[in-house]
Amino acid sequence: MTLEAIQALDRSDPLAAKREEFVIPEGLVYLDGNSLGLLPRAVPGHLEKVVQQQWGHDLIRSWNLHGWVELPLQVGAKIARLIGAEADEVVAADSTSVNLFKVLLAALRLRPNRRIIVSDIDNFPTDLYIAQGVSRLLGGYELRFVQKDQIEAALDQQTAVLMLTEVDYRTGYLYDMARLTRLAHEKGALVIWDLAHSAGAFPVHLNQHRVDFAVGCGYKYLNGGPGAPAFLFVARQHQRAAFPFLSGWMGHQAPFAFVPEYVAAEDIRRLTVGTPSVLSMSALDAALEVFANVDMEVVRQKSLQLTGLFIELMEPLAARYGFELVTPTLHTRRGSQVSYRHPQGYPVMQALISQGVVGDFRAPDIVRFGFAPLYLRFVDVWYAVNRLEQVMRQDLWKDPRFSQRAKVT
Amino acid sequence: MTLEAIQALDRSDPLAAKREEFVIPEGLVYLDGNSLGLLPRAVPGHLEKVVQQQWGHDLIRSWNLHGWVELPLQVGAKIARLIGAEADEVVAADSTSVNLFKVLLAALRLRPNRRIIVSDIDNFPTDLYIAQGVSRLLGGYELRFVQKDQIEAALDQQTAVLMLTEVDYRTGYLYDMARLTRLAHEKGALVIWDLAHSAGAFPVHLNQHRVDFAVGCGYKYLNGGPGAPAFLFVARQHQRAAFPFLSGWMGHQAPFAFVPEYVAAEDIRRLTVGTPSVLSMSALDAALEVFANVDMEVVRQKSLQLTGLFIELMEPLAARYGFELVTPTLHTRRGSQVSYRHPQGYPVMQALISQGVVGDFRAPDIVRFGFAPLYLRFVDVWYAVNRLEQVMRQDLWKDPRFSQRAKVT
Repeated sequence: MTLEAIQALDRSDPLAAKREEFVIPEGLVYLDGNSLGLLPRAVPGHLEKVVQQQWGHDLIRSWNLHGWVELPLQVGAKIARLIGAEADEVVAADSTSVNLFKVLLAALRLRPNRRIIVSDIDNFPTDLYIAQGVSRLLGGYELRFVQKDQIEAALDQQTAVLMLTEVDYRTGYLYDMARLTRLAHEKGALVIWDLAHSAGAFPVHLNQHRVDFAVGCGYKYLNGGPGAPAFLFVARQHQRAAFPFLSGWMGHQAPFAFVPEYVAAEDIRRLTVGTPSVLSMSALDAALEVFANVDMEVVRQKSLQLTGLFIELMEPLAARYGFELVTPTLHTRRGSQVSYRHPQGYPVMQALISQGVVGDFRAPDIVRFGFAPLYLRFVDVWYAVNRLEQVMRQDLWKDPRFSQRAKVT
Repeated sequence: MTLEAIQALDRSDPLAAKREEFVIPEGLVYLDGNSLGLLPRAVPGHLEKVVQQQWGHDLIRSWNLHGWVELPLQVGAKIARLIGAEADEVVAADSTSVNLFKVLLAALRLRPNRRIIVSDIDNFPTDLYIAQGVSRLLGGYELRFVQKDQIEAALDQQTAVLMLTEVDYRTGYLYDMARLTRLAHEKGALVIWDLAHSAGAFPVHLNQHRVDFAVGCGYKYLNGGPGAPAFLFVARQHQRAAFPFLSGWMGHQAPFAFVPEYVAAEDIRRLTVGTPSVLSMSALDAALEVFANVDMEVVRQKSLQLTGLFIELMEPLAARYGFELVTPTLHTRRGSQVSYRHPQGYPVMQALISQGVVGDFRAPDIVRFGFAPLYLRFVDVWYAVNRLEQVMRQDLWKDPRFSQRAKVT
């Protein structure tokens, strides 16, 4: 594919104008939106208004005046549209880990006679850690963490919950949500999907696939800012039965009645706990506006074009310099990222970053490139591969400073 | 006390200059800093830098470059100084409710053969709700929620945990932390103190009183902004034994090794869970700078003067219009707020707010006035009582619009 052909792709890109809605540092090719999304232009002004006017001036009255108390549901409703859920099935709150803890406890109690939690041993670690914490707390559970090709065989009549992250954070492998959910249901198990690398990256169809629970992250493809509030989904049919064991006042039927007995709200609010993080949640709220008029099917189409182009352009480089593609080439099994194994992955990525192309590294040997279709151009893909070629050809990665491990990788 | 004498108090106030460090809306007398603290002037600029430079420009590199990963410990250390703890005993994270859930679970497992949780039936509801959720989750616990004067008698050899909020959110009653902690320890129980209305309001001496665990709020007297991250304290002696059942990746010994087995960090980090909320936590971080050169004993002295003056000035009004003081007059039993029962408390408070004096109402019949010594003047106290006198004398509270209950009270 020639540079001219690639530039033509940008000219006919229906999402091209979206790029203007983000702050893009001069000369940066940012392929790490799967770790921390870019800053949407609407955020700083909105956040300043929330800080100066709402907090600074209107103060405590803002809970009513500016609808702070509604923010978790309001933000949840915006996310719901992106993941195939109804507005009243999603709420923004806490972190992904805390939300997973909440829905996992709720799900397990809906299957009281089953004692097995099935997951992927390559699931994002915090998901596995949360299950280990729950298991240690409640006792008597078997954690059946297996390889991807063993998941289906691991499901049986004793399985309480199947919990999976739809896209593997290392390889970009995309699970077949419809199939796995159906198989789990056939065994009588409930499913929890972690949408960390899905929400905002491509359309998700939670209700179409009859998913029971889901959680997800606000700061990756949703661009909500570092440590943005996460979200959780509970299918309407489970909302009255999903008990909030993390029982905080915001999940109470009447939080401002200040009664000593906990009575869970009847709706999704029951899975909220403490006072919502108004500043962070306001940033996420404003960030989600970039999705307001976006067709997620169009996003998916561009995502597959971007990742496909990257894989294509990388082919000669991969062969010459020993990058082993670990992302599925099959469209239906690919998320919105492309990853390679490389024995010198860490210094190679550091050298590439020094050249203005930001991807990231995941232990033990994965270099990872995320493609956020709202702000990436096809020429960015071309440029990224060009720079990586230069890093390898000129041995830039051999500079000793690129081997010094940072605290956060 | 004459207005002249009150103005003289302001002139000799060693904390007078602190007021300049806050944004104070024109003409507002803000007696609700116990619900949401004022905006410190340093916050907007710092937050803008975090948003524009750190998130917007430096992006994912900020985790290392700007120490995002250290924020929970850095903020915790600033709070530690205010509550009589060591820097490595406090961490900022999550909400107060979630933190209470974490330390309550940890504490209960340190007393595995005991099955009673003692608390005050008038404790802030979310604290009671969290205990109810934990009890429902684990089963077999007795929740002994009693009146204040029954707390001591409620402690026995079966008590696992005594959990109390140091200052009663309705009445401003201040518990004797030293005595209650000692009595609980004598029975072999552990103690958890909720410092929601203590931290930043007066000196707390956690280690001096050998407190085991504590939690607290970032958005009241610490002025961290609406829904600011909360904090938790674990005494050093318990840190290795306090298991984090809410086991998230940030509490892992090596979060960025991405290994599937959870191994808890050996320090207080183990009680963190998900990715820290960088925006909210940065606001709190900047807000805490106002305390950097503050002697909390001086803060306490002014707090008692402010609340004492308010009670004194209110006396004729209370007698004439039926305000029943429910805050202890004894200094050692009084937090930094003053509350009255009044049968028309709700409309009276709404009318007072309409006159530019902001306190709040707590069901069923409490009007509550919080006194944040860093930004309140003695003349504010005089002004507040004057306006309340006007509200009562002119029957302003009878305006029907003041009886319409807002969603958030």
